[in-house]
Amino acid sequence: MSISEAIPFLQTLRVSSSYFNISTVIAISVFFALLCACIIVGHLLEENRWFNESITSLLLGLASGGVVLLVTKGSSSHILVFSEELFFIYLLPPIIFNAGFQVKKKQFFHNFSIILMFGVLGTIISFCLVSAGTYLLFSKIGVTSLNVQDYLALGAIFSATDSVCTLQVLSQDETPFLYSVVFGEGVVNDATSIVLFNAVQSLDLSDVDAFTALRLLGTFLYLFFTSTILGIAVGLLSAYIIKTLYLGRHSTDREIAIMLIMAYLSYMLAELLSLSGILTVFLCGIVMSHYTWHNVTESSRITTKHAFATISFIAETFIFLYVGMDALDMDKWKSSKASVGTSLAVSASMLFLVLLGRAAFVYPLANLANCFKKRDREKTEFKQQFILWWAGLMRGAVTIALCYNQFASSESTSSLDCLLITCTIIVVLFSTVVFGSITKPLIEALLLRHAKPAVSDATDFASLEDLRILFLEEGDRPEQDPSQPAPRRSSLRLLMRYPTSTVHYFWRKFDDKFMRPVFGGRGFVPYVPGSPTGAQDVDENS
Amino acid sequence: MSISEAIPFLQTLRVSSSYFNISTVIAISVFFALLCACIIVGHLLEENRWFNESITSLLLGLASGGVVLLVTKGSSSHILVFSEELFFIYLLPPIIFNAGFQVKKKQFFHNFSIILMFGVLGTIISFCLVSAGTYLLFSKIGVTSLNVQDYLALGAIFSATDSVCTLQVLSQDETPFLYSVVFGEGVVNDATSIVLFNAVQSLDLSDVDAFTALRLLGTFLYLFFTSTILGIAVGLLSAYIIKTLYLGRHSTDREIAIMLIMAYLSYMLAELLSLSGILTVFLCGIVMSHYTWHNVTESSRITTKHAFATISFIAETFIFLYVGMDALDMDKWKSSKASVGTSLAVSASMLFLVLLGRAAFVYPLANLANCFKKRDREKTEFKQQFILWWAGLMRGAVTIALCYNQFASSESTSSLDCLLITCTIIVVLFSTVVFGSITKPLIEALLLRHAKPAVSDATDFASLEDLRILFLEEGDRPEQDPSQPAPRRSSLRLLMRYPTSTVHYFWRKFDDKFMRPVFGGRGFVPYVPGSPTGAQDVDENS
Repeated sequence: MSISEAIPFLQTLRVSSSYFNISTVIAISVFFALLCACIIVGHLLEENRWFNESITSLLLGLASGGVVLLVTKGSSSHILVFSEELFFIYLLPPIIFNAGFQVKKKQFFHNFSIILMFGVLGTIISFCLVSAGTYLLFSKIGVTSLNVQDYLALGAIFSATDSVCTLQVLSQDETPFLYSVVFGEGVVNDATSIVLFNAVQSLDLSDVDAFTALRLLGTFLYLFFTSTILGIAVGLLSAYIIKTLYLGRHSTDREIAIMLIMAYLSYMLAELLSLSGILTVFLCGIVMSHYTWHNVTESSRITTKHAFATISFIAETFIFLYVGMDALDMDKWKSSKASVGTSLAVSASMLFLVLLGRAAFVYPLANLANCFKKRDREKTEFKQQFILWWAGLMRGAVTIALCYNQFASSESTSSLDCLLITCTIIVVLFSTVVFGSITKPLIEALLLRHAKPAVSDATDFASLEDLRILFLEEGDRPEQDPSQPAPRRSSLRLLMRYPTSTVHYFWRKFDDKFMRPVFGGRGFVPYVPGSPTGAQDVDENS
Repeated sequence: MSISEAIPFLQTLRVSSSYFNISTVIAISVFFALLCACIIVGHLLEENRWFNESITSLLLGLASGGVVLLVTKGSSSHILVFSEELFFIYLLPPIIFNAGFQVKKKQFFHNFSIILMFGVLGTIISFCLVSAGTYLLFSKIGVTSLNVQDYLALGAIFSATDSVCTLQVLSQDETPFLYSVVFGEGVVNDATSIVLFNAVQSLDLSDVDAFTALRLLGTFLYLFFTSTILGIAVGLLSAYIIKTLYLGRHSTDREIAIMLIMAYLSYMLAELLSLSGILTVFLCGIVMSHYTWHNVTESSRITTKHAFATISFIAETFIFLYVGMDALDMDKWKSSKASVGTSLAVSASMLFLVLLGRAAFVYPLANLANCFKKRDREKTEFKQQFILWWAGLMRGAVTIALCYNQFASSESTSSLDCLLITCTIIVVLFSTVVFGSITKPLIEALLLRHAKPAVSDATDFASLEDLRILFLEEGDRPEQDPSQPAPRRSSLRLLMRYPTSTVHYFWRKFDDKFMRPVFGGRGFVPYVPGSPTGAQDVDENS
């Protein structure tokens, strides 16, 4: 039988895989092949100043979206449509959990006040400004048929910075203070934006009264505290289970599985209770890295650390690829029916408001924070303020997901809704590619060449110094005069003088005395060597 | 404000999460909570002789399915319906990949001929016997309206053993020969059953002629070889990429991500090309553990080893939980319309055919294999044959998934289809719980108490001895007489006498000379210490 005869014969032999849709298989195959390509290209461009993984993925997504469009002759790009469910159920939780799990806790809590100020107060300022700005600017462009809720939603949508892209351009070692603030702010800001967005969507705006703003604030605070408590509770529960039952005794798989599943469960439980899953899973990550992680065997520690980072990395790459491919969804572009001029005007005004909204809180709040700092080297310089402003300008997947939720979920998507969606995509693409590629060279030019590394690291040094003072003052006196009330007064005085360090000191005392004996943690569980490499198990059978 | 006043106030504050269906969130939350429960209960019952993880998950799934039925008052159990797509796209690939990745390759290839005989020939014998058996027995019970394709499909469905449950009762250290054969057979058998099932479904049975059986065989061989080649190709590609680009230089995440994604891609590509994904991903796992795994950094090695095992473990637990919950899908039970007697008769005859079908190939084939072995200690004893027969009696998720595919995918599910589905569920539950719980005590009673461990380990010892002989004969002569053709004759003679060891020896030579220099592997990549614990990174910031 010749080859030409064999091919049709083989084709009759081919068995159709009937378990799943062929389009699902194609979509998954294409996507995973592209993910591989992204990782490899990202690796090759690692040394490049202008590119980073986000931009690479976005551009690769755009390119492949274009190819799909050409292949299907512009008719269908339906497999590429952005799905909020996929994003919020599968992609976002691992990224945020990993952010909490890998965060340098000392840095994060040292800058906690400024992070909270930026993330909560700043986002609210930006939300108000963007809402008001869109109301004013859109009427000038000629886009007028939006209602109050839409304007408020736009405010929330464009207040969500993209922490993923930002983290790829800032280095934790070179600029620890900036990294810590931008990172922490990014997570808190995402949570704030989503909570604000939820609050806006749930508000009944038909009876706006004096209490509306108060109700919004009440909702916000309620969500903030309950989500935090839930995250901490689930994290502590996982630590307690693993410590008490000593799961690693029989199988390391169980430890890792419990950590994975409980982390995800915290997110889902929060969503089930209508809380903020993003905040819950972030707190759960912090608690797990502080307690649970120390209770597992050595090999589980290595595995969880790298596996969580990898899952998060894949999810991030996936998102940017997804956003890139989704940008070329022709149906949206066609049905927006707007002229190029209107589209550009709307996009430009959105971009302007993003720039303005961030500037409106970064500079005032940073200078406000400077007023409370006594030492000059602790203060945030103008250059650093500029970076803080610039690094949070990128808009990403959260923005797109919220935008779809507001404007595409209703049964009848009007041409105005399509216009807003396409303009949001333009803003996201522009800010990620243009702002994103400038950021790394900008930081190099502004900070690293003109200033010594010690300057950007100043706050951390101060903290260590403060702590040493504290230990000297605290540790010596009680032994000298145990009956005197002097230590108490001293503590209070210290709290006023060095609030962060004092809180940290008392937290450590509380942690060592009450928390760690129950929930485990560094030094409170016996060292289990496990199989640190596991190499011999496989090697001897190769 | 009192508490009773506060609650409604808080309720007005609660924000509905509008990104996803509330039923999705509930289903995921319940499922993950149950997964946690399964892991913990499985841990607590680890020492128990009668229980294992599969049985625990199955029973817990049944119990929670019952609770859901009670809560919803028997009306809806729709979130619990078994989805083939979920099973074949997300749950099966990681399990099979991990099986290939963790397989003890020396043992596996040493017993390769018997594994292949059992897995391919045995499955075909069982398939023929069950098909014919159902045809004969069902007509006696009064179930007559099935067509030829249905009978053939039933044969394929009930020839798929459940390797997952089996592996939990056999120990790799105590009974390495049995473990290796049962494990290997399980994977090959799954692949064979699925390929047979696909072949049956794709055959046009309206024109049955003399070539039908030949076509079936042709399809089978085509699928078998192309799938194998694809799996090896993807595995080698991943090794080559990681070795050449040295991904670990910048980030260990990339290495792990590439391994994960390419493994999954191999499965999806096979499905895309209408091949057998299960066989492809198994081979890809073997190749990856032989080459790729040695090319990554130390911490990536530990991570991949444990992470793949954990993902597989979660998927297994998930499947049994799923099957357990699905068993109480009341709609199916109601619409089967059969009397209890008929259901029991059908289930009993299926179970009988499963027992018979396996007995019909294990004993003859094992004795056939014994005839080719010269040494007594290499031969499979009757006790071992009994265990081989017994350990493959469990039917699991593959059976259920194939059954749904055949009888539930059509638009109009008749009462007969429902009867067959419910009876399949009964067979799966009964075989897993009853046969599964007896297996561990049975093995203990038969093998470990009456025989020395060395007996069950006999084949491995023989292999090492053979290899030593080989090396002595091969290694010495060429140096003495390089011009003589003696080594060649000697090799041929050796191949006849010790086929497995000789093949292994030549494979090692080929591997060291051609494969490892290109694709890496043990000893062929420079040792990169990486951060073997990674502990200090997190510790110093706690």
